[in-house]
Amino acid sequence: MTTADDLLARLQPQRMWDRCEALGRLSEQDGGLTRVFLSPQQRAANSLVLDWMRDAGLEARLDAIGNCVGRYEGERAGLPCLMLGSHLDTVRDAGKYDGMLGVIAAIESVSALSAMKARLPFAIEVIGFGDEEGVRFGSTLLGSRAVAGSFDAQLLDRKDGAGIAMRDALQAFGLDPAAIGTVARRRQDVLAYAELHIEQGPVLEAEGLPVGVVTAINGGNRFNVELTGVAGHAGTVPMSLRRDALVAAAECVLAVERIAATTPQIVGTVGRIEALPGAMNVIPGSVRFSLDVRAPTDAQRNAAAGAIREACEAIAQRRGTGIAMEPLWEAKTAHCAPGLQRQIAAAIAAEGTRVHALSSGAGHDGMALVAIAPIGMLFVRCKDGVSHNPAEAVTLADIAIGARVLTRFIVAFTLPAD
Amino acid sequence: MTTADDLLARLQPQRMWDRCEALGRLSEQDGGLTRVFLSPQQRAANSLVLDWMRDAGLEARLDAIGNCVGRYEGERAGLPCLMLGSHLDTVRDAGKYDGMLGVIAAIESVSALSAMKARLPFAIEVIGFGDEEGVRFGSTLLGSRAVAGSFDAQLLDRKDGAGIAMRDALQAFGLDPAAIGTVARRRQDVLAYAELHIEQGPVLEAEGLPVGVVTAINGGNRFNVELTGVAGHAGTVPMSLRRDALVAAAECVLAVERIAATTPQIVGTVGRIEALPGAMNVIPGSVRFSLDVRAPTDAQRNAAAGAIREACEAIAQRRGTGIAMEPLWEAKTAHCAPGLQRQIAAAIAAEGTRVHALSSGAGHDGMALVAIAPIGMLFVRCKDGVSHNPAEAVTLADIAIGARVLTRFIVAFTLPAD
Repeated sequence: MTTADDLLARLQPQRMWDRCEALGRLSEQDGGLTRVFLSPQQRAANSLVLDWMRDAGLEARLDAIGNCVGRYEGERAGLPCLMLGSHLDTVRDAGKYDGMLGVIAAIESVSALSAMKARLPFAIEVIGFGDEEGVRFGSTLLGSRAVAGSFDAQLLDRKDGAGIAMRDALQAFGLDPAAIGTVARRRQDVLAYAELHIEQGPVLEAEGLPVGVVTAINGGNRFNVELTGVAGHAGTVPMSLRRDALVAAAECVLAVERIAATTPQIVGTVGRIEALPGAMNVIPGSVRFSLDVRAPTDAQRNAAAGAIREACEAIAQRRGTGIAMEPLWEAKTAHCAPGLQRQIAAAIAAEGTRVHALSSGAGHDGMALVAIAPIGMLFVRCKDGVSHNPAEAVTLADIAIGARVLTRFIVAFTLPAD
Repeated sequence: MTTADDLLARLQPQRMWDRCEALGRLSEQDGGLTRVFLSPQQRAANSLVLDWMRDAGLEARLDAIGNCVGRYEGERAGLPCLMLGSHLDTVRDAGKYDGMLGVIAAIESVSALSAMKARLPFAIEVIGFGDEEGVRFGSTLLGSRAVAGSFDAQLLDRKDGAGIAMRDALQAFGLDPAAIGTVARRRQDVLAYAELHIEQGPVLEAEGLPVGVVTAINGGNRFNVELTGVAGHAGTVPMSLRRDALVAAAECVLAVERIAATTPQIVGTVGRIEALPGAMNVIPGSVRFSLDVRAPTDAQRNAAAGAIREACEAIAQRRGTGIAMEPLWEAKTAHCAPGLQRQIAAAIAAEGTRVHALSSGAGHDGMALVAIAPIGMLFVRCKDGVSHNPAEAVTLADIAIGARVLTRFIVAFTLPAD
């Protein structure tokens, strides 16, 4: 057996930094980062990650949904695994740590174990999920759902913005859509899932802490909202006779903000909006916008979504416009296993760092994996709480401490009792 | 010389109706009407209109900007003309009377003159302008500006939504961009410009009148407004720390409505809006929207535009977002010549109809032509004041009376003294 200090001395934070930079350059556009599911850029990222996994002593392969999967056997071959990982896809105009840092950190931990020929009483698997953000097909967690056995095969017919079905995109990528079922793991083969991820929010920075232990991943709802008014000539219809769908939508956007702001940790966002017919000299006859609502508890979330619906319906009624709210997606709060929270907290404390517990406002692959294994998460501080933005930033020192905490957690890991 | 009654008996309102239907079918989409500058649908419309002009005894041709131009000589060849017309392009998802009815009515009047071999002490020209709405290249009145000699040659480099420059679109249509200068008329060749157009507003319907005489075409301003906030993760940035460009824009949209509503006849419209990056799970980092402001007097318009600017800047400052308002277009109020107003009023009164004078909230080709000739306009009632909408409707009886008034005006026309 090896001591934690021996292992920790082998971690190479600068290499992790350089790998974040390398993945951050694999983008569909210059001067920014966008890398979506099954894209040429994703293929290039997979190639790098599979090479890094092999260099770290993992047996590495691409699975049928396009996840990079690396396995490091335990004291004997075929033991159940501690699963580690995060995602390799990005939002549009993304930062270079969201997802990627967790994959790179897990590979770094295994690299240290491997360098010391250390074998643990369980296997380790590192997964770089091919889709978590859902940008291309409008459905999130495709990679981790496949691993959890909850991938919805109907999504294979879902088309991207260019009209390409997911089934065809998988085949064009060299993957077999019919084999996605084989990606699913059995409960008895996965002891736990643990993920290192940047916080993507401002809490740890405000607390002055490099890392924190996550209590739960907040649930969320998404809707498409459509308001229907009456289009008309922008010069001739008096203001008093208008039924302008956009001014009604503007009131709805402000209602979302007002209702979400009533309770800390509840957030509501309108990220997309479109007015039709969309001409400068035509009163908008209809408007479509997206609505995303998240909260730390399912009860708070349902109350907020209900209040927003009531407010928007009242606005529509007062303004004489029609309204339809189509539910697109719902995720319940995914609670982190108390036993894993304690083990992660112990690893943080071993670094001499005060332990701060916080919930995750962002969704993560653990939301899917909680169905087959206890989940745990370690957050790393990011600058100004900014994420989903090119300004996303993490310090080298925080990357180093994050990798140390993850490595301490791995070597001390035991199956949580609760 | 012929009597007005003989002429009026030759007008065929049903033919005018059928011609509106025929042009209304020439659309880029099924189940709606969109016909933009230099499109294949415009080519088909031109072909019909040039045929109708020739059948009515006009010498007809397409000019270098794509206007259909028909000339009916007066008592001798080469006399200065009374110019009549309107436009043949449409907004997206348009009605079938806006523009077209004025061209068809002018052709009908000439057809009656021609059938009686009546020659007047002036020539008549009928123009079907190729672009008034400005949908394709974002700049309005292209056809009438060319006739008025105020076409901006820099616009030839302007690209449409598909990246096609106007210059190339003209050439592909068989027109010579270098010849646009030849379209311009000399002041001494145009005695006056008169246009029949649907009201596109609710005033005549409220007055119970089929037609009305126009006093002025309201001026307008258009702006592109851009708000710049901070993009971020929709799940992790607390409401209190956001600088969401879309909630700021929503307040601006409501400010436009509030300020415009303070004074009757002032209107303000946000017709287009886009949030960037435009993902459901990303707080909008920037928003672009269009702003269109119109008023019966230039002083009212400037005051309203200034108040909107101040309100939007105050919103942006309070919310910590940047704001830029880029002026795109400005048109001063174009006053109809009092002498022409009197002649149109006399023609209305001759029909036994009460004369109602009103200003035009919509822009019209007269805004360009006022630079070279006195202008006059005759409005025809439309249903519910609806225009720029497939529900745009005019009755056959109102079309008939409109054509009668226009014909009475033509045969009695004299150069206005003021």
